[in-house]
Amino acid sequence: MDQVRIGIVGLGNMGTGHAQYLIEGQVEGAVLAAVSDMRPERLTLATKEWGDRIRTFLDPEEMFRSGAVDGVLLCTPHYDHPQQAIAAFAAGLHVLVEKPAGVYTKQVREMNEAAAAGGKVYGIMYNQRTNPLYGKLRELIASGELGEIRRTNWIITNWYRSQAYYNSGGWRATWAGEGGGVLINQDPHQLDLWQWTTGLMPKRIRAFCQFGKHRDIEVENDVTAYVEYENGATGVFVTSTHECPGTNRFEISGDRGKIVIEDDKMTFWRLRQLESEFNAVNETPFDQPEVWKFDVPVQAGGAQHLEITRDWTNAILKGTPLIAPGEEGIKGLTISNGMLLSTWTDDWVDLPIDEELFYAKLQEKIAQSKRKGE
Amino acid sequence: MDQVRIGIVGLGNMGTGHAQYLIEGQVEGAVLAAVSDMRPERLTLATKEWGDRIRTFLDPEEMFRSGAVDGVLLCTPHYDHPQQAIAAFAAGLHVLVEKPAGVYTKQVREMNEAAAAGGKVYGIMYNQRTNPLYGKLRELIASGELGEIRRTNWIITNWYRSQAYYNSGGWRATWAGEGGGVLINQDPHQLDLWQWTTGLMPKRIRAFCQFGKHRDIEVENDVTAYVEYENGATGVFVTSTHECPGTNRFEISGDRGKIVIEDDKMTFWRLRQLESEFNAVNETPFDQPEVWKFDVPVQAGGAQHLEITRDWTNAILKGTPLIAPGEEGIKGLTISNGMLLSTWTDDWVDLPIDEELFYAKLQEKIAQSKRKGE
Repeated sequence: MDQVRIGIVGLGNMGTGHAQYLIEGQVEGAVLAAVSDMRPERLTLATKEWGDRIRTFLDPEEMFRSGAVDGVLLCTPHYDHPQQAIAAFAAGLHVLVEKPAGVYTKQVREMNEAAAAGGKVYGIMYNQRTNPLYGKLRELIASGELGEIRRTNWIITNWYRSQAYYNSGGWRATWAGEGGGVLINQDPHQLDLWQWTTGLMPKRIRAFCQFGKHRDIEVENDVTAYVEYENGATGVFVTSTHECPGTNRFEISGDRGKIVIEDDKMTFWRLRQLESEFNAVNETPFDQPEVWKFDVPVQAGGAQHLEITRDWTNAILKGTPLIAPGEEGIKGLTISNGMLLSTWTDDWVDLPIDEELFYAKLQEKIAQSKRKGE
Repeated sequence: MDQVRIGIVGLGNMGTGHAQYLIEGQVEGAVLAAVSDMRPERLTLATKEWGDRIRTFLDPEEMFRSGAVDGVLLCTPHYDHPQQAIAAFAAGLHVLVEKPAGVYTKQVREMNEAAAAGGKVYGIMYNQRTNPLYGKLRELIASGELGEIRRTNWIITNWYRSQAYYNSGGWRATWAGEGGGVLINQDPHQLDLWQWTTGLMPKRIRAFCQFGKHRDIEVENDVTAYVEYENGATGVFVTSTHECPGTNRFEISGDRGKIVIEDDKMTFWRLRQLESEFNAVNETPFDQPEVWKFDVPVQAGGAQHLEITRDWTNAILKGTPLIAPGEEGIKGLTISNGMLLSTWTDDWVDLPIDEELFYAKLQEKIAQSKRKGE
């Protein structure tokens, strides 16, 4: 194969954006071959804008079976991702799924199993992994520059969303429509980067979600979570949609000092000697290790969505490893589900979470869910 | 009375410091009249350095009854404060107690009751209240500049203490000697300022203390706490002694924006309009309130311990209100005890805490406590 024929499922904001750069030829080795949307007017518009060389389908599964595409980009509502991906794998296609991978881990695990069985290239649109700041942080931690991690702390409260935003779609911020609030819609990138950059998944979670805080919505939009890691480190994740202006500050402390990412800048307070080594030999009560503070040089760039699609295309054509393998989508979602489950049970949640219990609790919420305006 | 004759109990680092500025005449209207310490060599040194006009007592209660002093400054180990204060009030003296007020709220409540019965001037050495940054913050919040508070977040992990520090006294960081770790020894100022500046006491606490983290000690030196306030706001307090370099960053968000105190600077992101008012009328999904960011001008100064002693002296001589009334010492201690109790019971703690339960749990710890080196 020297060209990947891509089909896009869902022509909302994201799907249309992806189509645009494919049409413009910005992804070498890829061509937009077909689109699918359940709304006929979207398909009519697509043909009008992009010409009739792009095939259109009302039913995505018909597109999967059409032979017109080699891989699909799933840009549908969160709940639909796993079932569509499973159908696409069954049709022998490569899949790139928008974030979040799904709404509950049970369905995402099934998607991962289908991907493994299908053996095709399976990616997820974690475009923030292409942000050089986070790539650099991951590299610094993986290479041991920060020493063993002792604490993580992410305050990500700058996802401001007004009531007008929530009112702009009856499905928005509902259990039935989205399956959650800030954790499922706004935070998937941070929940991915939190564990991707540090290489640490929580061992257990105790979280405190508040629902409809300062907003007329039924889902969580204010969360504080405490986590513990296998190595004894702890972490905090604070997020909300009602604070203005919010904060986006990620602090990681380790045996070799502290790194903070804030205002698109990374600062490293690096100890000349590991704290543990200093502490083992120091004999002066109020002495401290020597600290060197500096801004970490980070290259510009990061092509975001475009880079993820290019990367996935290259993986298909050349077998290169993915920046964001689809299988990893379950990690952030596990943390997200765990935070809700901890709140609902008012207790600790050990990882991996009880996916059946989460699914059952979510169904209870969906049963009582109301579209806004009803 | 035109001059307050002060007696100091305990000539350790703090007591000696207080004596020094009194000897130098830095507190108008106050004179150092007597000192008390159970170690004869300290008293000998005091007489040698400051002359025999300063009376010396091995037994503080003898000093209280001597008629030589009008008020006392208690600079003894934490556990001893309440019992000594109660004896001083019984002798008709004014009392200024070093922080923390005590180790458990039961004893501090009894101290407060004795103070109320005695009717004398009762202060606590919360010298950080004289830091203009925190005074200004309190004034901004009290005057409504920040609007109703939605979240507080204090990361105070810059209390670095090496093993050498802990080893410098067998009583240090033991349940029997200090009755706790970072919460009782290093954090009393922050636990006071957290509620003094905001005017908010938690309604309930869920905390996660870790004991002897990266250090050979029996008490807590790594704490993450989540709190909820009566008005629905939430808060986070993270503290430790093993991180280097730590962080001291206090963020408060409210209906009118956000204030951050970090690096001895206060920054205010002030909304032109209350978020709640903007949200009520805004009709554009991704619009946000207009934000004006600026450094808050804060006067220099703040005479710390000296200022608190001057303030207490003035209250005795002129009846002026105290910056740090002794009765308020129980507030920070309640939060501190609540954090430990939440950890020990692995559950929520509602405020006011169950003081008998805390006392009983503390006695269990004391019974198993070991001086370091034993």
